[in-house]
Amino acid sequence: MIKVGIVGANGYTGFELMRLLAAHPEAEVTFASSRSLAGQKIAETYPTLSGYYGDMSYADVDLERAAECDVVFACLPHGQSAEICGKLIDAGAKVIDLSADYRYDDINLYEKTYKIDHPRKDLTKEAVYGLPEYNRREIAKARLIGNPGCYVTASVLALKPLADAGVINKKTVIIDAKSGTSGAGRKSDVAYNFNETDGNFKAYGVTTHRHTTEIEEKSGATVTFTPHLLTVKRGILATIYCDLKGSPDDAEKAYARYEKEPFVHYLGSTLPDIKAAAGSNCCYIGAKYEEKTGRLIVVSCIDNLIKGASGQAVQNMNIMFGLPETTGLPRVGFHL
Amino acid sequence: MIKVGIVGANGYTGFELMRLLAAHPEAEVTFASSRSLAGQKIAETYPTLSGYYGDMSYADVDLERAAECDVVFACLPHGQSAEICGKLIDAGAKVIDLSADYRYDDINLYEKTYKIDHPRKDLTKEAVYGLPEYNRREIAKARLIGNPGCYVTASVLALKPLADAGVINKKTVIIDAKSGTSGAGRKSDVAYNFNETDGNFKAYGVTTHRHTTEIEEKSGATVTFTPHLLTVKRGILATIYCDLKGSPDDAEKAYARYEKEPFVHYLGSTLPDIKAAAGSNCCYIGAKYEEKTGRLIVVSCIDNLIKGASGQAVQNMNIMFGLPETTGLPRVGFHL
Amino acid sequence: MIKVGIVGANGYTGFELMRLLAAHPEAEVTFASSRSLAGQKIAETYPTLSGYYGDMSYADVDLERAAECDVVFACLPHGQSAEICGKLIDAGAKVIDLSADYRYDDINLYEKTYKIDHPRKDLTKEAVYGLPEYNRREIAKARLIGNPGCYVTASVLALKPLADAGVINKKTVIIDAKSGTSGAGRKSDVAYNFNETDGNFKAYGVTTHRHTTEIEEKSGATVTFTPHLLTVKRGILATIYCDLKGSPDDAEKAYARYEKEPFVHYLGSTLPDIKAAAGSNCCYIGAKYEEKTGRLIVVSCIDNLIKGASGQAVQNMNIMFGLPETTGLPRVGFHL
Amino acid sequence: MIKVGIVGANGYTGFELMRLLAAHPEAEVTFASSRSLAGQKIAETYPTLSGYYGDMSYADVDLERAAECDVVFACLPHGQSAEICGKLIDAGAKVIDLSADYRYDDINLYEKTYKIDHPRKDLTKEAVYGLPEYNRREIAKARLIGNPGCYVTASVLALKPLADAGVINKKTVIIDAKSGTSGAGRKSDVAYNFNETDGNFKAYGVTTHRHTTEIEEKSGATVTFTPHLLTVKRGILATIYCDLKGSPDDAEKAYARYEKEPFVHYLGSTLPDIKAAAGSNCCYIGAKYEEKTGRLIVVSCIDNLIKGASGQAVQNMNIMFGLPETTGLPRVGFHL
Repeated sequence: MIKVGIVGANGYTGFELMRLLAAHPEAEVTFASSRSLAGQKIAETYPTLSGYYGDMSYADVDLERAAECDVVFACLPHGQSAEICGKLIDAGAKVIDLSADYRYDDINLYEKTYKIDHPRKDLTKEAVYGLPEYNRREIAKARLIGNPGCYVTASVLALKPLADAGVINKKTVIIDAKSGTSGAGRKSDVAYNFNETDGNFKAYGVTTHRHTTEIEEKSGATVTFTPHLLTVKRGILATIYCDLKGSPDDAEKAYARYEKEPFVHYLGSTLPDIKAAAGSNCCYIGAKYEEKTGRLIVVSCIDNLIKGASGQAVQNMNIMFGLPETTGLPRVGFHL
Repeated sequence: MIKVGIVGANGYTGFELMRLLAAHPEAEVTFASSRSLAGQKIAETYPTLSGYYGDMSYADVDLERAAECDVVFACLPHGQSAEICGKLIDAGAKVIDLSADYRYDDINLYEKTYKIDHPRKDLTKEAVYGLPEYNRREIAKARLIGNPGCYVTASVLALKPLADAGVINKKTVIIDAKSGTSGAGRKSDVAYNFNETDGNFKAYGVTTHRHTTEIEEKSGATVTFTPHLLTVKRGILATIYCDLKGSPDDAEKAYARYEKEPFVHYLGSTLPDIKAAAGSNCCYIGAKYEEKTGRLIVVSCIDNLIKGASGQAVQNMNIMFGLPETTGLPRVGFHL
Repeated sequence: MIKVGIVGANGYTGFELMRLLAAHPEAEVTFASSRSLAGQKIAETYPTLSGYYGDMSYADVDLERAAECDVVFACLPHGQSAEICGKLIDAGAKVIDLSADYRYDDINLYEKTYKIDHPRKDLTKEAVYGLPEYNRREIAKARLIGNPGCYVTASVLALKPLADAGVINKKTVIIDAKSGTSGAGRKSDVAYNFNETDGNFKAYGVTTHRHTTEIEEKSGATVTFTPHLLTVKRGILATIYCDLKGSPDDAEKAYARYEKEPFVHYLGSTLPDIKAAAGSNCCYIGAKYEEKTGRLIVVSCIDNLIKGASGQAVQNMNIMFGLPETTGLPRVGFHL
Repeated sequence: MIKVGIVGANGYTGFELMRLLAAHPEAEVTFASSRSLAGQKIAETYPTLSGYYGDMSYADVDLERAAECDVVFACLPHGQSAEICGKLIDAGAKVIDLSADYRYDDINLYEKTYKIDHPRKDLTKEAVYGLPEYNRREIAKARLIGNPGCYVTASVLALKPLADAGVINKKTVIIDAKSGTSGAGRKSDVAYNFNETDGNFKAYGVTTHRHTTEIEEKSGATVTFTPHLLTVKRGILATIYCDLKGSPDDAEKAYARYEKEPFVHYLGSTLPDIKAAAGSNCCYIGAKYEEKTGRLIVVSCIDNLIKGASGQAVQNMNIMFGLPETTGLPRVGFHL
């Protein structure tokens, strides 16, 4: 059994890890810390967890105890995470960081994007970007994983095959993305109150959203990225507009690289919806060609909390510990 | 034109008053105060209000300016409201208080229920309970209105005809009530975050909700009152269980008193749903008799923000100023 | 009082007309036909309408009776509507057609788009496109109005000022649009069942949606148009990507044409959300410039059933009958 | 591996079985029939199932092929199911029937409730009611299971301990129940269209719902049962009003019988919400005592598709095949 620690267990990604790992046959959460819930019994705070975490309580942040685990998942705000992950690595743990702090190759781009001085530049080179479909080999040997952003996962899995194959104009890509509200985290902000959100829909972070630079670094394309807030809890759908240089067939071929992937499904001209992905660790991709304009319109769907965060983190853990990559991960969505 | 002031204009009932009064042909909001929004332009804060409140800004709380209005609506928390309404009355304004502070006949019951010493006992006797279907004549002459609670409006309009007619056992009534989330107000509380609320449903305040005593005082019945939180924004549906002493026909007759009411519709054995009421100032009531148990099951629906708060407040204003009672009030729901 | 007839009163646009006209001080619905509801009492079918339509029943389709009205709103499927509207015109009524049948200038484009032979080509020239912000003068004199499509209203109001002013590349426009489910009409289709829709989000009609040609004809731009289905009942938000030729200031100036419009509000770089528009007859428009790509990202919001259908139809009626354009129309949204 | 057949695989309970069994380590769906989808590839119909059902197609109804499975789940309408299950039993299969046809001990009560002549009275005696917490031993030996109704599961698990212990008045019980829309099945009925359901809430089947007699037979109490339709997809919350004869402590003791149950959790005076249960096979129960009236208010929550249908069916299968009862079943909810 892999002993797992979770730091920041009360946020949505932390909770989702506890939920997913409850069903994982080879891993066990032995430490879960939350500043706000420290000392409270897990089963009383969240009755739904009582079947698995019956006697356990949330711990206060205690990096020594955390570092005794085989692997620690850090579910902390950007900036704070870099330092804590660094200390855990120093103490000998393997670390999967769900924040943005160890995702970037270009540390200047990170610092410009997040407006933070990175406190552990000694580790950023070593950290591996946790997108298994592209970095499996490196992940298997890594001590420190920068787990990809949710919008980035949906966008890069759809865009990179086309960019790598040279079949699109990499300078004119537009990503019109829509996310469920859990992407904003567990916030006590009136803007996310049910009354303000239900029945509404809006764009936000237009021209300024921080995932833009991560998408650009990982896909190699220049993108206009426009996120919107859906009135659903889980799921991202990205509609991606590409000016095709090659033929629609060339695009089709580019997606053949996913044929054996357990968690990425290319559906041809069938466009996926959020319901296909929500609840599972899968990414679904479809594409349609518009003859009138020569554009390829690609639609990509994931569950932002699973493939876009905690599920992908468990997938990375499976790889790091030599387990079959699908171990304990949901491959079918909730459907309802 | 009636000059209207609103104190506490940023909460949901305050906003709803601004929305409803924008369409009122005989009244005009000339003063709207909000501590948190003081100085901000209304049209910039809420673009949807720009057509009517183009140049106006939210004022800071200024009771002298408020008292220059013909009538002031107080949309303030229980306890705070009593004193401010008192000062407005002292300054010569007419006041409609949407809080609980001037609703009770029995001031001890109020103090016990809200755990507050009432600071203006000199006014509680004079204040009129603003349920027009029962107190029209008193409302017409009143200076100070205690506007009914939302659950209370739905419950009492359904229950009082039966209790008054003596056709039910007044000691065994159960009210199982379900409310939209706007009933909780404009809260930055994680419990009301979209993620926590959507797809959920729960009971709350079981055996302890403060509207219980108001229902009991106004209906004359002893009730078990169990509120629940729906995942809809607007609307209350109360399912009321009564042990019938008379015949179903007697109950039918008791509801005949609403025949000429513009805002209360008795539907016989057709049970209303929230959609019939949401968006309008109407209360819809239906009832079914269960022969096996001798129980009458009454269903009552209102929009908690309109007939349950701001719409009823405008209805009271219409009466106080000698206007037709329906002036400016919506009698058709949103439907969608 | 204008005597109003509604043909097809049971669909969502027909119902919305009945709801809006209930509050209209100068018009009265005297005839409402519905094949499926013929003979049923309106107040029993929809209790929420009981305050206004107390004794009235749905009529069967009876064009003679309809033609006795001063104006008839046709809420019928594409294709069917052309012929019925023609007969009503022949019988001397004024007609506002909410279908696509009388919207196009280029009747070949209509026939190609809808795959229908137009049965009344004698009337298509005379029919006026009912977008008041551009065709007020013609609407005032018209007998027959082709009321604009919902997506088209949101798109053209945002796009046409830029296209007319020559500040954008008219060949590279992308419209990524999202609509509430009422846009699909009152359907007994399992795909629109609450279970299938709630929590979901999807693109549909990609590269093939019929509103594309109407947008192109009315805006003068070539567009990639991608509609999506939101899990909200009302509202459209269109995110429009334009390659700017002029400066951001030129775009700003182009929107000055709406300064005195009662129902179109340009918000500068504040981007509107659906909540601002839902429930009102207003269109809200905002725009942001992305320096990196030279793109202008325009966001436009309307209520699809009001400004996108029945409200705009009433606006057209007001103009046709010489009333102030805002008579009886909601200028404030529901907010909640 | 247990070979599983599903008859009626396209309804919500059939789909839910396919979803749950995909993650079951000891069972495999080898036959799934659906009249409407016969011949279609499962992975194309439901992309979310592609990971597990890659090459499989929906079969037409073929009882011979179905009977080759070790166990067949029948997800068919009441009435139809009785005969088909009978034939499968005749052919030697074990059968778990999710309809009402084999649930009742008193076949007259069934026939009166469902207004159907039971075609296989020879089997009704033998059939075992599939509520594992009460009938484990009989289930282990059964060939034919009548899987409990959703409302019944939530109600009886909460009510039966109190009724059995004699601590409540069994003649005055009221169950005010609220269900998610998936309880109505996969319907192309305009009443379940998103527009009609979202934002709404209503009572239905008041005094006449068919689950009433099943609740009464299985709990031993006489009940007023009032179901309501929530705007959530999954989940039932039942609020149960009991007149207490014993003390609150006696009630507490009655629930001790669930202490070792993996799927029933008694929470004391903490009242569960739907979110605790939705997505899991667990039932959560809490209770509060109201001194003023001597009433015990019990709240019980389940997921109607899992513990209320397909999950409980799998639990029964586990017992019938000697597996640990929790095998392959979710014990943690979706939470979001």
